[in-house]
Amino acid sequence: MITTIHIESALDLNRIAAYLEGLEETIIYKLIDRAQFAENRIAYQIGKSGFQGAGELSLLDLRLRRQEEMDVEFGRFCVPEERPFNDGLPNPKRDVTLPPSCLNIDNYDAVNVSTRIREAYCAFLPDICPAGDDGQYGSSVENDVYALQAIARRIHFGALYVAESKYRSDPNSYAELVRQRDREALLRLLTRPEVEAAILKRVAEKVTHIQSYINPEVRRSIPPEAVLNFYRTQIIPLTKEGQVRYFLSRKMSIFPPRI
Amino acid sequence: MITTIHIESALDLNRIAAYLEGLEETIIYKLIDRAQFAENRIAYQIGKSGFQGAGELSLLDLRLRRQEEMDVEFGRFCVPEERPFNDGLPNPKRDVTLPPSCLNIDNYDAVNVSTRIREAYCAFLPDICPAGDDGQYGSSVENDVYALQAIARRIHFGALYVAESKYRSDPNSYAELVRQRDREALLRLLTRPEVEAAILKRVAEKVTHIQSYINPEVRRSIPPEAVLNFYRTQIIPLTKEGQVRYFLSRKMSIFPPRI
Repeated sequence: MITTIHIESALDLNRIAAYLEGLEETIIYKLIDRAQFAENRIAYQIGKSGFQGAGELSLLDLRLRRQEEMDVEFGRFCVPEERPFNDGLPNPKRDVTLPPSCLNIDNYDAVNVSTRIREAYCAFLPDICPAGDDGQYGSSVENDVYALQAIARRIHFGALYVAESKYRSDPNSYAELVRQRDREALLRLLTRPEVEAAILKRVAEKVTHIQSYINPEVRRSIPPEAVLNFYRTQIIPLTKEGQVRYFLSRKMSIFPPRI
Repeated sequence: MITTIHIESALDLNRIAAYLEGLEETIIYKLIDRAQFAENRIAYQIGKSGFQGAGELSLLDLRLRRQEEMDVEFGRFCVPEERPFNDGLPNPKRDVTLPPSCLNIDNYDAVNVSTRIREAYCAFLPDICPAGDDGQYGSSVENDVYALQAIARRIHFGALYVAESKYRSDPNSYAELVRQRDREALLRLLTRPEVEAAILKRVAEKVTHIQSYINPEVRRSIPPEAVLNFYRTQIIPLTKEGQVRYFLSRKMSIFPPRI
Protein backbone atom coordinates (compact mmCIF):
# COMPACT_ATOMS: atom_id res chain seq x y z
CA MET A 1 0.00 0.00 0.00
CA ILE A 2 1.45 3.36 -1.01
CA THR A 3 1.08 5.75 1.90
CA THR A 4 -1.59 8.42 1.65
CA ILE A 5 0.45 10.64 3.98
CA HIS A 6 2.06 13.42 1.96
CA ILE A 7 4.93 15.71 2.73
CA GLU A 8 3.00 18.73 3.98
CA SER A 9 1.30 16.69 6.69
CA ALA A 10 3.67 13.78 7.03
CA LEU A 11 4.89 14.79 10.47
CA ASP A 12 1.58 15.95 11.89
CA LEU A 13 1.23 13.40 14.70
CA ASN A 14 -2.57 13.55 14.46
CA ARG A 15 -2.46 12.66 10.76
CA ILE A 16 -0.02 9.85 11.44
CA ALA A 17 -2.20 8.47 14.24
CA ALA A 18 -5.26 8.73 12.00
CA TYR A 19 -3.55 6.72 9.27
CA LEU A 20 -2.50 4.03 11.78
CA GLU A 21 -6.05 3.93 13.16
CA GLY A 22 -7.41 3.46 9.64
CA LEU A 23 -5.15 0.43 9.14
CA GLU A 24 -6.70 -1.35 12.14
CA GLU A 25 -9.81 -2.47 10.25
CA THR A 26 -7.67 -3.89 7.45
CA ILE A 27 -5.60 -5.89 9.94
CA ILE A 28 -8.75 -7.16 11.71
CA TYR A 29 -10.46 -8.14 8.42
CA LYS A 30 -7.43 -10.17 7.37
CA LEU A 31 -7.17 -11.92 10.73
CA ILE A 32 -10.86 -12.88 10.58
CA ASP A 33 -10.43 -14.22 7.03
CA ARG A 34 -7.43 -16.32 8.13
CA ALA A 35 -9.40 -17.68 11.07
CA GLN A 36 -11.91 -19.29 8.69
CA PHE A 37 -9.27 -22.02 8.28
CA ALA A 38 -7.71 -24.33 10.83
CA GLU A 39 -4.26 -23.77 12.36
CA ASN A 40 -2.77 -26.19 9.77
CA ARG A 41 0.70 -26.45 11.32
CA ILE A 42 2.08 -28.45 8.41
CA ALA A 43 1.94 -25.30 6.26
CA TYR A 44 4.65 -23.81 8.51
CA GLN A 45 6.94 -26.85 8.62
CA ILE A 46 10.03 -26.90 6.42
CA GLY A 47 10.11 -29.54 3.72
CA LYS A 48 6.34 -30.12 3.96
CA SER A 49 5.22 -27.66 1.26
CA GLY A 50 4.30 -30.27 -1.33
CA PHE A 51 6.28 -28.25 -3.86
CA GLN A 52 8.67 -30.03 -6.19
CA GLY A 53 12.21 -29.05 -5.22
CA ALA A 54 11.20 -26.71 -2.38
CA GLY A 55 13.70 -28.40 -0.06
CA GLU A 56 14.07 -26.69 3.29
CA LEU A 57 11.19 -24.26 2.87
CA SER A 58 7.69 -24.27 4.33
CA LEU A 59 4.58 -23.50 2.30
CA LEU A 60 4.43 -20.09 4.04
CA ASP A 61 8.10 -19.45 3.17
CA LEU A 62 7.30 -20.14 -0.48
CA ARG A 63 4.11 -18.07 -0.58
CA LEU A 64 5.74 -15.08 1.15
CA ARG A 65 8.72 -15.28 -1.22
CA ARG A 66 6.61 -15.49 -4.36
CA GLN A 67 4.29 -12.70 -3.16
CA GLU A 68 7.23 -10.35 -2.53
CA GLU A 69 8.85 -11.28 -5.86
CA MET A 70 5.60 -10.07 -7.46
CA ASP A 71 5.18 -7.04 -5.20
CA VAL A 72 8.73 -5.79 -5.80
CA GLU A 73 8.02 -5.62 -9.55
CA PHE A 74 5.10 -3.28 -8.80
CA GLY A 75 7.31 -1.06 -6.63
CA ARG A 76 5.92 -1.92 -3.17
CA PHE A 77 9.26 -1.71 -1.41
CA CYS A 78 10.03 1.74 -2.78
CA VAL A 79 7.56 2.89 -0.12
CA PRO A 80 9.27 3.54 3.25
CA GLU A 81 6.77 1.62 5.41
CA GLU A 82 6.63 -1.37 3.05
CA ARG A 83 9.56 -3.38 4.37
CA PRO A 84 10.01 -6.89 2.93
CA PHE A 85 10.14 -10.22 4.79
CA ASN A 86 12.67 -11.56 2.27
CA ASP A 87 16.21 -10.54 1.33
CA GLY A 88 17.69 -10.40 -2.16
CA LEU A 89 14.57 -9.31 -4.03
CA PRO A 90 14.97 -8.01 -7.62
CA ASN A 91 14.43 -4.42 -8.75
CA PRO A 92 11.04 -2.85 -9.55
CA LYS A 93 9.81 -3.08 -13.14
CA ARG A 94 7.53 -0.10 -12.69
CA ASP A 95 8.23 3.62 -12.33
CA VAL A 96 6.96 4.64 -8.89
CA THR A 97 6.62 8.33 -8.05
CA LEU A 98 6.62 9.13 -4.35
CA PRO A 99 6.25 12.41 -2.48
CA PRO A 100 9.59 13.76 -1.15
CA SER A 101 10.42 11.99 2.09
CA CYS A 102 10.48 13.85 5.39
CA LEU A 103 12.38 10.98 7.00
CA ASN A 104 16.02 11.36 8.00
CA ILE A 105 17.36 7.87 7.50
CA ASP A 106 19.47 6.48 4.68
CA ASN A 107 18.32 2.87 4.82
CA TYR A 108 14.66 2.24 5.60
CA ASP A 109 15.48 -1.38 6.43
CA ALA A 110 17.26 -0.15 9.55
CA VAL A 111 13.77 -0.33 11.12
CA ASN A 112 12.80 -3.64 9.50
CA VAL A 113 11.46 -5.99 12.19
CA SER A 114 9.73 -8.32 9.71
CA THR A 115 11.41 -11.46 11.03
CA ARG A 116 10.08 -10.77 14.52
CA ILE A 117 6.65 -9.86 13.11
CA ARG A 118 6.44 -13.21 11.37
CA GLU A 119 7.52 -15.13 14.50
CA ALA A 120 4.98 -13.25 16.62
CA TYR A 121 2.19 -13.76 14.08
CA CYS A 122 2.78 -17.52 13.77
CA ALA A 123 2.78 -17.85 17.57
CA PHE A 124 -0.51 -15.89 17.64
CA LEU A 125 -2.37 -18.06 15.08
CA PRO A 126 -3.55 -20.65 17.64
CA ASP A 127 -5.33 -17.81 19.50
CA ILE A 128 -7.64 -17.12 16.53
CA CYS A 129 -7.69 -20.30 14.40
CA PRO A 130 -9.43 -23.60 15.20
CA ALA A 131 -6.87 -26.19 16.29
CA GLY A 132 -6.07 -29.01 13.92
CA ASP A 133 -5.84 -29.54 10.19
CA ASP A 134 -8.58 -28.96 7.61
CA GLY A 135 -6.36 -29.51 4.56
CA GLN A 136 -6.74 -25.88 3.48
CA TYR A 137 -2.99 -25.17 3.39
CA GLY A 138 -2.92 -22.97 0.29
CA SER A 139 -5.74 -20.75 1.56
CA SER A 140 -4.16 -20.54 5.01
CA VAL A 141 -0.82 -19.21 3.78
CA GLU A 142 -2.49 -16.95 1.22
CA ASN A 143 -4.39 -15.27 4.05
CA ASP A 144 -1.29 -15.31 6.28
CA VAL A 145 0.62 -13.28 3.70
CA TYR A 146 -2.14 -10.65 3.48
CA ALA A 147 -2.35 -10.38 7.28
CA LEU A 148 1.44 -10.23 7.68
CA GLN A 149 1.74 -7.44 5.11
CA ALA A 150 -1.01 -5.39 6.79
CA ILE A 151 0.58 -5.82 10.24
CA ALA A 152 4.09 -5.03 8.95
CA ARG A 153 2.82 -1.89 7.21
CA ARG A 154 1.33 -0.61 10.48
CA ILE A 155 4.45 -1.39 12.49
CA HIS A 156 6.96 0.08 10.03
CA PHE A 157 4.85 3.17 9.34
CA GLY A 158 4.80 3.86 13.08
CA ALA A 159 8.50 3.08 13.37
CA LEU A 160 9.40 5.65 10.72
CA TYR A 161 6.92 8.52 10.81
CA VAL A 162 5.94 8.48 14.46
CA ALA A 163 9.62 8.33 15.40
CA GLU A 164 10.62 11.26 13.19
CA SER A 165 7.68 13.27 14.50
CA LYS A 166 8.61 12.54 18.12
CA TYR A 167 12.25 13.39 17.41
CA ARG A 168 11.36 16.78 16.01
CA SER A 169 9.15 17.49 19.01
CA ASP A 170 12.15 17.17 21.36
CA PRO A 171 15.38 16.96 19.33
CA ASN A 172 17.76 17.74 22.18
CA SER A 173 16.54 14.96 24.44
CA TYR A 174 16.48 12.35 21.66
CA ALA A 175 19.88 13.42 20.28
CA GLU A 176 21.49 13.14 23.68
CA LEU A 177 20.13 9.63 24.29
CA VAL A 178 21.18 8.60 20.77
CA ARG A 179 24.68 9.87 21.48
CA GLN A 180 24.70 7.68 24.60
CA ARG A 181 23.20 4.75 22.60
CA ASP A 182 20.81 4.37 25.54
CA ARG A 183 18.04 2.14 24.13
CA GLU A 184 16.17 1.83 27.44
CA ALA A 185 16.03 5.59 27.96
CA LEU A 186 14.92 6.11 24.33
CA LEU A 187 12.15 3.56 24.90
CA ARG A 188 11.01 5.42 28.03
CA LEU A 189 11.11 8.80 26.28
CA LEU A 190 9.07 7.67 23.26
CA THR A 191 6.45 5.70 25.23
CA ARG A 192 2.94 7.20 25.53
CA PRO A 193 1.01 4.89 27.92
CA GLU A 194 -2.29 6.77 27.51
CA VAL A 195 -2.07 6.47 23.71
CA GLU A 196 -1.37 2.74 23.95
CA ALA A 197 -4.34 2.23 26.29
CA ALA A 198 -6.63 4.06 23.86
CA ILE A 199 -5.44 1.92 20.94
CA LEU A 200 -6.04 -1.33 22.82
CA LYS A 201 -9.54 -0.31 23.88
CA ARG A 202 -10.44 0.82 20.36
CA VAL A 203 -9.07 -2.29 18.64
CA ALA A 204 -11.00 -4.67 20.91
CA GLU A 205 -14.19 -2.65 20.33
CA LYS A 206 -13.64 -2.77 16.55
CA VAL A 207 -13.25 -6.56 16.57
CA THR A 208 -16.56 -6.82 18.46
CA HIS A 209 -18.44 -4.41 16.17
CA ILE A 210 -17.07 -5.83 12.90
CA GLN A 211 -18.23 -9.31 13.95
CA SER A 212 -21.53 -8.20 15.48
CA TYR A 213 -23.61 -9.59 12.60
CA ILE A 214 -21.71 -12.84 11.87
CA ASN A 215 -23.82 -16.01 11.64
CA PRO A 216 -21.84 -18.46 13.82
CA GLU A 217 -23.20 -21.39 11.86
CA VAL A 218 -21.48 -20.27 8.66
CA ARG A 219 -18.57 -18.10 9.79
CA ARG A 220 -16.02 -18.24 12.60
CA SER A 221 -15.39 -15.26 14.86
CA ILE A 222 -12.12 -14.30 16.55
CA PRO A 223 -11.92 -13.25 20.22
CA PRO A 224 -11.51 -9.47 20.68
CA GLU A 225 -9.26 -10.07 23.69
CA ALA A 226 -6.91 -12.17 21.55
CA VAL A 227 -6.43 -9.29 19.09
CA LEU A 228 -6.09 -6.80 21.96
CA ASN A 229 -3.41 -9.03 23.49
CA PHE A 230 -1.58 -9.32 20.16
CA TYR A 231 -1.52 -5.52 19.87
CA ARG A 232 -0.40 -5.17 23.49
CA THR A 233 2.35 -7.79 23.47
CA GLN A 234 3.55 -7.65 19.84
CA ILE A 235 2.32 -4.90 17.51
CA ILE A 236 2.88 -1.98 19.89
CA PRO A 237 6.22 -3.24 21.29
CA LEU A 238 7.55 -4.01 17.79
CA THR A 239 6.50 -0.53 16.62
CA LYS A 240 8.45 0.95 19.54
CA GLU A 241 11.45 -1.29 18.79
CA GLY A 242 11.35 0.04 15.24
CA GLN A 243 11.25 3.61 16.59
CA VAL A 244 14.34 2.98 18.73
CA ARG A 245 16.11 1.60 15.66
CA TYR A 246 15.05 4.70 13.74
CA PHE A 247 16.52 7.04 16.33
CA LEU A 248 19.79 5.09 16.44
CA SER A 249 20.04 5.19 12.62
CA ARG A 250 18.82 8.76 12.13
CA LYS A 251 21.05 11.22 10.30
CA MET A 252 22.14 13.80 12.84
CA SER A 253 22.82 16.57 10.30
CA ILE A 254 19.30 17.96 10.79
CA PHE A 255 18.27 19.60 14.07
CA PRO A 256 21.71 19.42 15.76
CA PRO A 257 21.23 19.42 19.53
CA ARG A 258 22.02 22.76 21.21
CA ILE A 259 24.40 21.94 24.05
CA MET B 1 -9.44 -20.63 -1.20
CA ILE B 2 -9.84 -24.40 -1.20
CA THR B 3 -13.50 -25.23 -0.60
CA THR B 4 -14.47 -26.49 2.84
CA ILE B 5 -17.37 -28.39 1.31
CA HIS B 6 -16.58 -32.10 1.26
CA ILE B 7 -18.13 -34.90 -0.71
CA GLU B 8 -20.55 -36.20 1.90
CA SER B 9 -22.23 -32.82 2.21
CA ALA B 10 -21.29 -31.21 -1.08
CA LEU B 11 -24.79 -31.34 -2.47
CA ASP B 12 -26.68 -30.43 0.68
CA LEU B 13 -28.21 -27.14 -0.46
CA ASN B 14 -28.18 -25.80 3.11
CA ARG B 15 -24.44 -26.43 3.40
CA ILE B 16 -23.83 -24.82 0.02
CA ALA B 17 -25.91 -21.77 0.97
CA ALA B 18 -24.07 -21.54 4.30
CA TYR B 19 -20.70 -21.54 2.53
CA LEU B 20 -21.86 -18.82 0.12
CA GLU B 21 -23.19 -16.78 3.05
CA GLY B 22 -19.83 -17.09 4.81
CA LEU B 23 -18.07 -15.66 1.74
CA GLU B 24 -20.13 -12.47 1.92
CA GLU B 25 -18.05 -10.93 4.73
CA THR B 26 -14.84 -11.62 2.80
CA ILE B 27 -16.24 -9.89 -0.29
CA ILE B 28 -17.44 -6.91 1.77
CA TYR B 29 -14.09 -6.57 3.63
CA LYS B 30 -12.20 -6.48 0.33
CA LEU B 31 -14.55 -3.91 -1.20
CA ILE B 32 -14.14 -1.66 1.86
CA ASP B 33 -10.33 -1.98 1.66
CA ARG B 34 -10.39 -1.07 -2.04
CA ALA B 35 -12.60 1.96 -1.30
CA GLN B 36 -9.84 3.47 0.86
CA PHE B 37 -8.28 4.54 -2.45
CA ALA B 38 -9.62 6.76 -5.21
CA GLU B 39 -11.13 5.42 -8.42
CA ASN B 40 -7.75 5.90 -10.17
CA ARG B 41 -8.95 5.28 -13.72
CA ILE B 42 -5.44 5.33 -15.15
CA ALA B 43 -4.75 1.97 -13.48
CA TYR B 44 -7.33 0.43 -15.84
CA GLN B 45 -6.12 2.09 -19.06
CA ILE B 46 -3.98 0.08 -21.46
CA GLY B 47 -0.45 1.28 -21.98
CA LYS B 48 -0.55 3.39 -18.78
CA SER B 49 0.88 0.81 -16.36
CA GLY B 50 4.28 2.46 -15.95
CA PHE B 51 5.83 -0.99 -16.54
CA GLN B 52 8.73 -1.29 -18.92
CA GLY B 53 7.55 -3.21 -21.97
CA ALA B 54 4.00 -3.74 -20.77
CA GLY B 55 2.64 -2.51 -24.07
CA GLU B 56 -1.11 -2.88 -24.46
CA LEU B 57 -1.80 -3.90 -20.89
CA SER B 58 -3.24 -1.93 -17.99
CA LEU B 59 -1.79 -2.03 -14.48
CA LEU B 60 -4.76 -4.21 -13.43
CA ASP B 61 -4.11 -6.56 -16.38
CA LEU B 62 -0.52 -6.97 -15.20
CA ARG B 63 -1.38 -7.44 -11.53
CA LEU B 64 -4.11 -9.99 -12.27
CA ARG B 65 -1.78 -11.88 -14.60
CA ARG B 66 1.12 -11.99 -12.11
CA GLN B 67 -1.21 -12.95 -9.25
CA GLU B 68 -2.63 -15.89 -11.20
CA GLU B 69 0.83 -16.98 -12.38
CA MET B 70 1.70 -17.25 -8.67
CA ASP B 71 -1.61 -18.81 -7.64
CA VAL B 72 -1.47 -21.52 -10.31
CA GLU B 73 1.86 -22.72 -8.89
CA PHE B 74 0.14 -23.22 -5.51
CA GLY B 75 -2.68 -25.20 -7.12
CA ARG B 76 -5.53 -22.66 -6.84
CA PHE B 77 -7.13 -23.58 -10.15
CA CYS B 78 -7.24 -27.27 -9.34
CA VAL B 79 -10.23 -26.26 -7.19
CA PRO B 80 -13.51 -26.30 -9.16
CA GLU B 81 -14.78 -22.88 -7.99
CA GLU B 82 -11.41 -21.16 -8.48
CA ARG B 83 -11.70 -20.20 -12.15
CA PRO B 84 -8.95 -17.97 -13.55
CA PHE B 85 -9.28 -14.57 -15.22
CA ASN B 86 -6.35 -15.36 -17.54
CA ASP B 87 -5.80 -18.01 -20.22
CA GLY B 88 -2.63 -19.99 -20.85
CA LEU B 89 -1.47 -20.31 -17.26
CA PRO B 90 1.30 -22.86 -16.46
CA ASN B 91 0.83 -26.07 -14.45
CA PRO B 92 0.84 -26.28 -10.63
CA LYS B 93 4.17 -26.88 -8.90
CA ARG B 94 2.48 -28.29 -5.83
CA ASP B 95 0.65 -31.57 -5.23
CA VAL B 96 -2.94 -30.66 -4.36
CA THR B 97 -5.22 -33.31 -2.87
CA LEU B 98 -8.93 -32.64 -3.27
CA PRO B 99 -11.97 -34.58 -2.09
CA PRO B 100 -13.63 -36.58 -4.89
CA SER B 101 -15.86 -34.26 -6.91
CA CYS B 102 -19.62 -34.67 -6.92
CA LEU B 103 -19.86 -32.47 -10.01
CA ASN B 104 -20.83 -33.91 -13.39
CA ILE B 105 -18.90 -31.72 -15.78
CA ASP B 106 -15.69 -32.43 -17.68
CA ASN B 107 -14.38 -28.88 -17.98
CA TYR B 108 -14.96 -26.56 -15.00
CA ASP B 109 -14.21 -23.58 -17.22
CA ALA B 110 -17.51 -24.21 -19.01
CA VAL B 111 -18.98 -22.07 -16.18
CA ASN B 112 -16.17 -19.48 -16.20
CA VAL B 113 -17.72 -15.99 -16.33
CA SER B 114 -14.56 -14.22 -15.11
CA THR B 115 -14.44 -11.79 -18.04
CA ARG B 116 -17.95 -10.57 -17.25
CA ILE B 117 -17.14 -10.45 -13.51
CA ARG B 118 -14.20 -8.18 -14.20
CA GLU B 119 -16.23 -5.89 -16.48
CA ALA B 120 -19.02 -5.66 -13.89
CA TYR B 121 -16.58 -5.00 -11.05
CA CYS B 122 -14.75 -2.21 -12.87
CA ALA B 123 -18.08 -0.55 -13.73
CA PHE B 124 -19.04 -0.83 -10.03
CA LEU B 125 -15.89 0.84 -8.63
CA PRO B 126 -17.21 4.43 -8.99
CA ASP B 127 -20.11 3.43 -6.70
CA ILE B 128 -17.76 2.73 -3.76
CA CYS B 129 -14.52 4.65 -4.46
CA PRO B 130 -13.97 8.40 -4.21
CA ALA B 131 -13.82 9.95 -7.69
CA GLY B 132 -10.48 11.13 -8.98
CA ASP B 133 -6.86 10.14 -8.67
CA ASP B 134 -4.81 9.82 -5.45
CA GLY B 135 -1.74 8.28 -7.11
CA GLN B 136 -2.22 4.99 -5.24
CA TYR B 137 -2.34 2.85 -8.37
CA GLY B 138 -0.41 -0.15 -7.05
CA SER B 139 -2.54 -0.40 -3.93
CA SER B 140 -5.73 0.02 -5.95
CA VAL B 141 -5.06 -2.90 -8.29
CA GLU B 142 -3.68 -5.04 -5.45
CA ASN B 143 -7.01 -4.64 -3.66
CA ASP B 144 -8.93 -5.07 -6.92
CA VAL B 145 -7.35 -8.49 -7.43
CA TYR B 146 -8.30 -9.65 -3.91
CA ALA B 147 -11.87 -8.42 -4.36
CA LEU B 148 -12.19 -9.96 -7.84
CA GLN B 149 -10.97 -13.34 -6.61
CA ALA B 150 -13.42 -13.33 -3.68
CA ILE B 151 -16.34 -12.38 -5.96
CA ALA B 152 -15.39 -14.94 -8.63
CA ARG B 153 -15.11 -17.69 -5.99
CA ARG B 154 -18.66 -16.94 -4.81
CA ILE B 155 -20.09 -16.87 -8.32
CA HIS B 156 -18.36 -20.01 -9.60
CA PHE B 157 -19.05 -21.98 -6.42
CA GLY B 158 -22.73 -21.20 -6.84
CA ALA B 159 -22.59 -21.95 -10.56
CA LEU B 160 -21.18 -25.43 -9.95
CA TYR B 161 -22.51 -26.79 -6.65
CA VAL B 162 -25.86 -25.05 -6.48
CA ALA B 163 -26.55 -26.09 -10.08
CA GLU B 164 -25.68 -29.75 -9.49
CA SER B 165 -27.79 -29.76 -6.33
CA LYS B 166 -30.77 -28.23 -8.15
CA TYR B 167 -30.35 -30.69 -11.02
CA ARG B 168 -30.49 -33.67 -8.71
CA SER B 169 -33.58 -32.28 -7.02
CA ASP B 170 -35.51 -32.39 -10.33
CA PRO B 171 -33.44 -34.28 -12.95
CA ASN B 172 -36.27 -34.90 -15.38
CA SER B 173 -37.27 -31.26 -15.72
CA TYR B 174 -33.68 -30.05 -16.08
CA ALA B 175 -32.72 -32.82 -18.51
CA GLU B 176 -35.68 -32.04 -20.75
CA LEU B 177 -34.85 -28.31 -20.89
CA VAL B 178 -31.19 -29.13 -21.55
CA ARG B 179 -32.25 -31.39 -24.43
CA GLN B 180 -34.21 -28.44 -25.82
CA ARG B 181 -31.22 -26.11 -25.13
CA ASP B 182 -33.83 -23.72 -23.66
CA ARG B 183 -31.74 -21.22 -21.69
CA GLU B 184 -34.67 -19.01 -20.73
CA ALA B 185 -36.69 -21.92 -19.34
CA LEU B 186 -33.63 -23.20 -17.43
CA LEU B 187 -33.19 -19.73 -15.93
CA ARG B 188 -36.84 -19.69 -14.83
CA LEU B 189 -36.62 -23.19 -13.34
CA LEU B 190 -33.44 -22.49 -11.32
CA THR B 191 -34.53 -19.05 -10.04
CA ARG B 192 -35.55 -18.75 -6.35
CA PRO B 193 -36.83 -15.15 -5.89
CA GLU B 194 -37.34 -15.54 -2.11
CA VAL B 195 -33.72 -16.75 -1.69
CA GLU B 196 -32.42 -13.81 -3.73
CA ALA B 197 -34.43 -11.33 -1.65
CA ALA B 198 -33.03 -12.80 1.58
CA ILE B 199 -29.45 -12.55 0.29
CA LEU B 200 -29.87 -8.90 -0.73
CA LYS B 201 -31.37 -7.94 2.63
CA ARG B 202 -28.63 -9.78 4.55
CA VAL B 203 -25.75 -8.36 2.50
CA ALA B 204 -26.91 -4.76 2.97
CA GLU B 205 -27.29 -5.35 6.72
CA LYS B 206 -23.78 -6.84 6.89
CA VAL B 207 -22.23 -3.81 5.16
CA THR B 208 -23.95 -1.56 7.72
CA HIS B 209 -22.91 -3.64 10.75
CA ILE B 210 -19.31 -4.17 9.62
CA GLN B 211 -18.88 -0.41 9.24
CA SER B 212 -20.84 0.56 12.35
CA TYR B 213 -17.71 1.54 14.29
CA ILE B 214 -15.65 3.21 11.54
CA ASN B 215 -14.22 6.64 12.35
CA PRO B 216 -15.15 8.67 9.24
CA GLU B 217 -12.19 10.98 9.80
CA VAL B 218 -9.69 8.18 9.26
CA ARG B 219 -11.52 5.59 7.17
CA ARG B 220 -13.94 5.69 4.25
CA SER B 221 -17.21 3.74 4.30
CA ILE B 222 -19.04 2.20 1.35
CA PRO B 223 -22.82 2.57 0.84
CA PRO B 224 -24.79 -0.59 1.74
CA GLU B 225 -27.21 0.07 -1.11
CA ALA B 226 -24.32 0.09 -3.60
CA VAL B 227 -23.25 -3.40 -2.53
CA LEU B 228 -26.87 -4.60 -2.50
CA ASN B 229 -27.27 -3.27 -6.02
CA PHE B 230 -24.05 -4.98 -7.17
CA TYR B 231 -25.33 -8.30 -5.80
CA ARG B 232 -28.75 -7.74 -7.39
CA THR B 233 -27.58 -6.68 -10.84
CA GLN B 234 -24.29 -8.59 -11.17
CA ILE B 235 -23.30 -11.23 -8.61
CA ILE B 236 -26.66 -13.06 -8.53
CA PRO B 237 -27.32 -12.87 -12.31
CA LEU B 238 -23.77 -14.02 -13.12
CA THR B 239 -24.14 -16.94 -10.69
CA LYS B 240 -27.35 -17.93 -12.48
CA GLU B 241 -25.68 -17.55 -15.89
CA GLY B 242 -22.97 -19.91 -14.65
CA GLN B 243 -25.66 -22.38 -13.51
CA VAL B 244 -27.26 -22.34 -16.96
CA ARG B 245 -23.84 -23.01 -18.49
CA TYR B 246 -23.37 -25.87 -16.02
CA PHE B 247 -26.65 -27.52 -17.01
CA LEU B 248 -25.86 -27.17 -20.71
CA SER B 249 -22.41 -28.73 -20.18
CA ARG B 250 -23.44 -31.39 -17.67
CA LYS B 251 -22.71 -35.03 -18.45
CA MET B 252 -26.05 -36.74 -19.02
CA SER B 253 -24.85 -40.24 -18.17
CA ILE B 254 -25.98 -39.84 -14.58
CA PHE B 255 -29.67 -39.60 -13.65
CA PRO B 256 -31.08 -40.23 -17.17
CA PRO B 257 -34.56 -38.72 -17.39
CA ARG B 258 -37.36 -41.26 -17.09
CA ILE B 259 -39.66 -40.57 -20.04
